[in-house]
Amino acid sequence: MSGTQFDVVGIGNAIVDVLARTDDHFLAQNRLSKGAMTIIDAQTAEELYGKMGPGVEVSGGSAANTIASIATLGGRGAFIGKVMDDQMGQVFRHDIRAVGVAFDTLSMVNGAPTARSLIFVSEDAERTMQTYLGACIELGPDDVDPQIIKSSHITYLEGYLWDPQQAKEAFIKAAKVAQQAGRQVSLSLSDPFCVDRHRGEFIDLVNSHVDILFANEEEIKSLYQVDSFDAALQHVKGHCEIAALTRSSKGSIIISGDNIHILDAEKVEKVVDTTGAGDAYAAGFLFGYTQGKDLGACGELGGILAAEIISHYGARPDTDLKELVKQTLG
Amino acid sequence: MSGTQFDVVGIGNAIVDVLARTDDHFLAQNRLSKGAMTIIDAQTAEELYGKMGPGVEVSGGSAANTIASIATLGGRGAFIGKVMDDQMGQVFRHDIRAVGVAFDTLSMVNGAPTARSLIFVSEDAERTMQTYLGACIELGPDDVDPQIIKSSHITYLEGYLWDPQQAKEAFIKAAKVAQQAGRQVSLSLSDPFCVDRHRGEFIDLVNSHVDILFANEEEIKSLYQVDSFDAALQHVKGHCEIAALTRSSKGSIIISGDNIHILDAEKVEKVVDTTGAGDAYAAGFLFGYTQGKDLGACGELGGILAAEIISHYGARPDTDLKELVKQTLG
Repeated sequence: MSGTQFDVVGIGNAIVDVLARTDDHFLAQNRLSKGAMTIIDAQTAEELYGKMGPGVEVSGGSAANTIASIATLGGRGAFIGKVMDDQMGQVFRHDIRAVGVAFDTLSMVNGAPTARSLIFVSEDAERTMQTYLGACIELGPDDVDPQIIKSSHITYLEGYLWDPQQAKEAFIKAAKVAQQAGRQVSLSLSDPFCVDRHRGEFIDLVNSHVDILFANEEEIKSLYQVDSFDAALQHVKGHCEIAALTRSSKGSIIISGDNIHILDAEKVEKVVDTTGAGDAYAAGFLFGYTQGKDLGACGELGGILAAEIISHYGARPDTDLKELVKQTLG
Repeated sequence: MSGTQFDVVGIGNAIVDVLARTDDHFLAQNRLSKGAMTIIDAQTAEELYGKMGPGVEVSGGSAANTIASIATLGGRGAFIGKVMDDQMGQVFRHDIRAVGVAFDTLSMVNGAPTARSLIFVSEDAERTMQTYLGACIELGPDDVDPQIIKSSHITYLEGYLWDPQQAKEAFIKAAKVAQQAGRQVSLSLSDPFCVDRHRGEFIDLVNSHVDILFANEEEIKSLYQVDSFDAALQHVKGHCEIAALTRSSKGSIIISGDNIHILDAEKVEKVVDTTGAGDAYAAGFLFGYTQGKDLGACGELGGILAAEIISHYGARPDTDLKELVKQTLG
């Protein structure tokens, strides 16, 4: 888009993921809600880490994953999020900058450590996330540089930001700045339980601020408290410019006014770890969108990226994404 | 073995690996010696990390990898190595304990951070390691508890320990205690350049202390400064009780007195990352050995474990190893 410095700026929790394999017995024993993201405190995180198997550390965070993938595709990305100036914070900063994302939010020098999400990957590739927010609770409106928002085609916000109190204010500030500057605002609903915690405010957001909404089936059903995907579809129709709704192996639906695209999921040889599937879908979609592709192609790109992410461990791309999408971009 | 608390105690550098994909152009541009392990200082590590692509952090360290795999197989393992009490040190400690290894070496509270190895994985799956030793240089003879050595069937030492000065003394102390207690000493030569740095001392070690020697083709040729594998074989024969020599896709050779076993490599669908192949081989071999298997079966187990490790990113096992070796163990 003309006059923009960035295609997409993401605002989100800056997290390092700790991934380990697990089985359903472990999840049950520790009363972990399979498939969900649960916020835990420092002590619970330490106890749970003590019981966790050997891990792999990879930079994560929902919006951060999306922006990292957009940059890997060749898009211009920026990220706003809070880390502590500790080893994990350095890892997070390194990884996102290494793919070319502008990330200049000041690190904390005192207080809670960099956030980590303990991610338990089941044998069926489902992931269960237990997140200690750490330094993320310090992200506030002062961290949102209006200049970056104004010079970004899209401001992308993760619903998870609604959990730390101050971040919500950062979120709303960014959305307003973007709107006033004639830019677009995109929101990912993040998690059905997160939607459950903040339903009323999310509905207001979707109605008043959001141009492009990302949600999976469970999230959009949770938002409107309905039992069927179709009922949710009828609710969301007309409430935001574009809704991109993902349905795992059933593919995705894109609805914009009277236009609808129904896309099949990409074939995946072996699903290894579903962590970051939604983040990757949003990345492919938004990259296509900022490149001026039609909505069908955007959804197709989302599906390709999601298929790549679930084929390996961790939520950041492990492949030459440019090569992967060459054909679709044409 | 009767009267032992541990099957194998390993002494080595306690390292967290930072793995990233690279290409040969990057290696050439930064004058990195492909396939080798090079020791770098803190400043070089920081500069190189700044140029490195997005990473994945996984616990590493040669002997530590071996012991972790032995424990994952169901063996009783202990590890001696030095970390700082920082986030990476906590990751290292967690990961090795999580597989059941006894690891009680005191952490440093002041000084250099936990060691990290920047591992550049090329498109052909070869790995190039640039290691900042950090807290490892503080490992000394006081960290070697004679009681653990005496109660271990095998004391396993990595050649890399010869790089930090004090660790060498820890190494020799452990070898002597083991010998005097009638236990066995095993050494991995680690790296051809490491052998080159310490050749004379390594030859003395092999002749005087080592019962089970692990080396790959380049290392054993470097040890005896010969050009052919066969020439190296003639040199090593008779100098230690058992030599297990690995030759990548050519398999491995085990020589013990007049007994020789020549084993083919396991078939691997796709070699992803060769980091830790030698460590895994030693793990399979020593596990079989401490379970009383014959040398042919030990070599076969080594090959199975090496094949597992090179099929994925990182040097720690990613699979149910017990299931993998069930048939071979009978």
